[in-house]
Amino acid sequence: MDSKTVGILKGVSTATLTTVLLKKGLRNVWLRGTKPIRPGQERLVGPAFTLRFTPAREDLATPASWASPISTRAAIEAMPEGCIAVADAMGVLDAGIFGDILCARMAKRGVAGLVTDGVMRDAAGVLGTGLPIWCDGIAAPASVAGLTFVGWQEPIACGGVAVFPDDIIVADDDGAVLIPAALLDAVLAEAPEQEVQEAWIMTEVDRGVPLPGLYPMNDETKARYAAFREGQ
Amino acid sequence: MDSKTVGILKGVSTATLTTVLLKKGLRNVWLRGTKPIRPGQERLVGPAFTLRFTPAREDLATPASWASPISTRAAIEAMPEGCIAVADAMGVLDAGIFGDILCARMAKRGVAGLVTDGVMRDAAGVLGTGLPIWCDGIAAPASVAGLTFVGWQEPIACGGVAVFPDDIIVADDDGAVLIPAALLDAVLAEAPEQEVQEAWIMTEVDRGVPLPGLYPMNDETKARYAAFREGQ
Amino acid sequence: MDSKTVGILKGVSTATLTTVLLKKGLRNVWLRGTKPIRPGQERLVGPAFTLRFTPAREDLATPASWASPISTRAAIEAMPEGCIAVADAMGVLDAGIFGDILCARMAKRGVAGLVTDGVMRDAAGVLGTGLPIWCDGIAAPASVAGLTFVGWQEPIACGGVAVFPDDIIVADDDGAVLIPAALLDAVLAEAPEQEVQEAWIMTEVDRGVPLPGLYPMNDETKARYAAFREGQ
Amino acid sequence: MDSKTVGILKGVSTATLTTVLLKKGLRNVWLRGTKPIRPGQERLVGPAFTLRFTPAREDLATPASWASPISTRAAIEAMPEGCIAVADAMGVLDAGIFGDILCARMAKRGVAGLVTDGVMRDAAGVLGTGLPIWCDGIAAPASVAGLTFVGWQEPIACGGVAVFPDDIIVADDDGAVLIPAALLDAVLAEAPEQEVQEAWIMTEVDRGVPLPGLYPMNDETKARYAAFREGQ
Amino acid sequence: MDSKTVGILKGVSTATLTTVLLKKGLRNVWLRGTKPIRPGQERLVGPAFTLRFTPAREDLATPASWASPISTRAAIEAMPEGCIAVADAMGVLDAGIFGDILCARMAKRGVAGLVTDGVMRDAAGVLGTGLPIWCDGIAAPASVAGLTFVGWQEPIACGGVAVFPDDIIVADDDGAVLIPAALLDAVLAEAPEQEVQEAWIMTEVDRGVPLPGLYPMNDETKARYAAFREGQ
Amino acid sequence: MDSKTVGILKGVSTATLTTVLLKKGLRNVWLRGTKPIRPGQERLVGPAFTLRFTPAREDLATPASWASPISTRAAIEAMPEGCIAVADAMGVLDAGIFGDILCARMAKRGVAGLVTDGVMRDAAGVLGTGLPIWCDGIAAPASVAGLTFVGWQEPIACGGVAVFPDDIIVADDDGAVLIPAALLDAVLAEAPEQEVQEAWIMTEVDRGVPLPGLYPMNDETKARYAAFREGQ
Repeated sequence: MDSKTVGILKGVSTATLTTVLLKKGLRNVWLRGTKPIRPGQERLVGPAFTLRFTPAREDLATPASWASPISTRAAIEAMPEGCIAVADAMGVLDAGIFGDILCARMAKRGVAGLVTDGVMRDAAGVLGTGLPIWCDGIAAPASVAGLTFVGWQEPIACGGVAVFPDDIIVADDDGAVLIPAALLDAVLAEAPEQEVQEAWIMTEVDRGVPLPGLYPMNDETKARYAAFREGQ
Repeated sequence: MDSKTVGILKGVSTATLTTVLLKKGLRNVWLRGTKPIRPGQERLVGPAFTLRFTPAREDLATPASWASPISTRAAIEAMPEGCIAVADAMGVLDAGIFGDILCARMAKRGVAGLVTDGVMRDAAGVLGTGLPIWCDGIAAPASVAGLTFVGWQEPIACGGVAVFPDDIIVADDDGAVLIPAALLDAVLAEAPEQEVQEAWIMTEVDRGVPLPGLYPMNDETKARYAAFREGQ
Repeated sequence: MDSKTVGILKGVSTATLTTVLLKKGLRNVWLRGTKPIRPGQERLVGPAFTLRFTPAREDLATPASWASPISTRAAIEAMPEGCIAVADAMGVLDAGIFGDILCARMAKRGVAGLVTDGVMRDAAGVLGTGLPIWCDGIAAPASVAGLTFVGWQEPIACGGVAVFPDDIIVADDDGAVLIPAALLDAVLAEAPEQEVQEAWIMTEVDRGVPLPGLYPMNDETKARYAAFREGQ
Repeated sequence: MDSKTVGILKGVSTATLTTVLLKKGLRNVWLRGTKPIRPGQERLVGPAFTLRFTPAREDLATPASWASPISTRAAIEAMPEGCIAVADAMGVLDAGIFGDILCARMAKRGVAGLVTDGVMRDAAGVLGTGLPIWCDGIAAPASVAGLTFVGWQEPIACGGVAVFPDDIIVADDDGAVLIPAALLDAVLAEAPEQEVQEAWIMTEVDRGVPLPGLYPMNDETKARYAAFREGQ
Repeated sequence: MDSKTVGILKGVSTATLTTVLLKKGLRNVWLRGTKPIRPGQERLVGPAFTLRFTPAREDLATPASWASPISTRAAIEAMPEGCIAVADAMGVLDAGIFGDILCARMAKRGVAGLVTDGVMRDAAGVLGTGLPIWCDGIAAPASVAGLTFVGWQEPIACGGVAVFPDDIIVADDDGAVLIPAALLDAVLAEAPEQEVQEAWIMTEVDRGVPLPGLYPMNDETKARYAAFREGQ
Repeated sequence: MDSKTVGILKGVSTATLTTVLLKKGLRNVWLRGTKPIRPGQERLVGPAFTLRFTPAREDLATPASWASPISTRAAIEAMPEGCIAVADAMGVLDAGIFGDILCARMAKRGVAGLVTDGVMRDAAGVLGTGLPIWCDGIAAPASVAGLTFVGWQEPIACGGVAVFPDDIIVADDDGAVLIPAALLDAVLAEAPEQEVQEAWIMTEVDRGVPLPGLYPMNDETKARYAAFREGQ
């Protein structure tokens, strides 16, 4: 993903992105149950690198499985710099998918961040790695207490949204939103203007303008806004 | 609502209010799933101005609907100064009912605060407006991604509690509690004394008095408390 | 519980404890839905003193019941110094099991802390007592609005885990973990070494060592680690 | 609703209706959690007459409230012949909205049927009235144990779907589907043909034709189907 | 429990019982999530014999535990003839509390029936024993896959209701209802008359009498009903 | 799978299979939320052929997608005779994964049955095909209203259990159980004896033998059972 695209999307809130995508007919692009692990994480932008878990089975999900060729370790070594790891943990809240060691290695490899509908473990250690993380909380038990890792770079479900490898993820204080790869250009074309428009409307509200006719804009307001844009 | 009533209720915790109402047979007056959006919001007191949503229907819940005569915009323009907007969002957690623009307008109109069993969107912008809010979290998508607005000043459900227009809402760190309008005078008569009593009991606990006989008070303790009250 | 045991366990994270117990076949030892009531609470260690609630029944769960011989008040007076009160609130989130007065008395009696799958009431007052608490949130209503207290020092369920009197509880930022009393010695023997091992692995990750072969360790890594341990 | 419309819709399954509506962009028209109360109820078709409940409040939801002007009794007396009563019970499963007496009166008034996301009470009595019912089960307690009735012929939520008065309801073994009033003519124009097409495809499957190219139809299959239709 | 009491309660529906108890202020007496295991089971009446489970712990919940002194087997041998076993399974739906062998033994001992908020296993075998059962479904795994049995004749939670030993249970097609032992006489005094009254109202509805004034009865209707009762 | 294996497993209940697997340390092998679609379906045995869905995305889950190379149609054409299709529908209950046409084609191809944690659509049509089905209910909407099909013969989650291609599925009135392929021989060696043993215990219960010592068997009972087995 080129740095210009990243730059543009770093300036667009996930709230605005969902509005732009809704106008294109996509209502289900916000990943439920994933929040910033710490306040003040800056907006995260990047292509999805997917990870997939199924439920634990006592014969498969064991500490020994961590050395298997299909393991979270192998997946991490396959992650390219700048990607966002997106993990389908099926919303399981009582087994932490990663702890400090795996997060430290991801940070070392230049992974941009981690997004999951599951939880992390070893909160103190994970925060210490500095990796930006969106998740649904913290739990002490290891992934194998509840989950079996089965593969990477496959289509997944995360927070009730279908994520395919290389879809674009944007995450901020409002959570994480998916932009389907095929819609990226259209979103880049419209989203920044939407941001400018809403900022101008806020200045109108500050002036005491009532909402009807202002938001959404009627013809008179559109004309005033056009004048403002020309004047910039 | 007169300022004296507001003043009295600002001095009573929601915990105490639920105890007073329980003694009158009301067990279901605490709105589930609504919390202060930021720490340290001061206690909020005011009459309820209700808002009602139903689920989204693709033919109705569209950005175009925001200009309809029955819209959240029109409802906001109808809110009197000092009211608390109470929104029945059916506990939907994946569509934010309001963002920065609508909250800014509510603040401008002198609305005292907003209480909902749903979520807000555009967290940073909403916090910037300074409007006191109790809600169940944050989500990027707009209300129309999951909800259809259908009216205001009707009876609603909010957090599992029936709220009628002009019932009284008190909200603090423990969440939001409803006082039925018809019970307001009785609550005003009893709640402040309950607060004094519990504060005195805390001083007794600090002195090392064991709980049985102290809380609830037996006759001996009641006598000591009466003496304390006379001595004030 | 002797102070040496407490001292050892204060140096072991709950994440490590779950790994040690998983290797012994115990997957279900982490109490769901209980978190530190405030950030930065230090790790809590102690034997469980259990409390049990059933649902409220209007003829039983009344303010009057607080003076009954089987009451939370009587239970608190029976708690030994250094114990951790573990309350089975059946995950009820709309009735606070304890408020400031009961927490103050527990602190006064030297109770080490409180762990529950339910919620507290009167957040400000409870925080003021300084009692370390792990719970699932805050609600204004009193316990009798949703719960009937039925006894203490019985086997209970808490957060989906069976807790027997005198099982050991350890709680930190990752939540609360149970060590069955019969497994305590085995855990004490293994857990500290596990902590050292994981700390050493983190230094290897910092050096840029990839995960496969490192975590879990293959024979070459084990040799390097053995050398490190000898050199200490 | 004229009898010709009813006749056409009685010949179309709810499964087919959802497919027709999906092609028009409506994904959320199937009412969750409502099933036929007895096997073999014939397909039900009619305009919605809506009923709305909020949660119980001990000061409002009492047996005495049954005599209030805003009561389920008054609502039933307002129901026109041939309508389908659609009750928003907020999915409450532990308070039966109606028992034998109210159902008997609805049957007496010629109400076509009842659809709710809540439950009925007095199963034996209700079945005895013969009223066709789609609901989410049975519970002994009366509505006032969990619900407060607040009005009729308002927009409601039922099973996660927004229902407006005079929307059309069709219910069969697959549950209940809403047709927005404004889309009725379009649905009537397309649905019967869809039924014929799927029936023909079934005969092809019976002949052993594989699915790719058959369902959905490719051009060759479309030609064969066109020939079949001409030949009818 | 004497046979006259059983006889009276066999003639009263659980729907009527909940109404009688509601008028005494008890709203929470219906056990959620428990239904007849087969259609047409006749109404069940008897005193509760309680059983209590906590979650499974791998070191406790094993097939070996079935031979422990505190086991479901020992509990069954302690059940008196005519009692109703009421099992608190914490609503666990993926571990069957009893199968054919234990049910056969209960039937052999003259236990009147079994009520639980959990599930049974070995459906075919259990039905073969003829024991009347109210439960929340069927699951193949044994209790120890999810539950640890901890005792009998203690206060329990079942389906969200507090059940004490010797409270009275009545179960029919509408589910199971608890009558607190202390309220039995009051219920026996009022419930049969309530049944007669509702039956008479049904005959009025059959005659075409509208609901307002009839149900609940106004003074004119009460007079007509009094005349009917005198005439009997 | 050879017919002898099928024959043996057709004689073993899923309840017995879970007990045998529990003794080998596997607690999580029963698929939650899947039941026989009609009463009296005979026990189903076969190797799993897996199907995987993710959530719907409006740009992907469309009727047009049914003609894609990665579609449920293509998957069905790849199913071998005698397999059991096991579909991971993520427990979605408001979109039916298959209707009559797809089930008819599966029956035509000799598929032994279908097991899913999701629901079917077009109940009447599906029952008409005669395909044995275990599912979690019925819903009118098509799969694309809630699900996107992404592949077959991959590891999946179904009802909270990890299922790999060619694991063995056994389904009866108690639901569906998974036997990991690697454990099949061990299960075949033990399960039939377990069935004989439990049947003999039932005859003992019929004779009036109390449970302690009988189930589980103490040494004296084991001797009697050994004598019975020798005598056969």
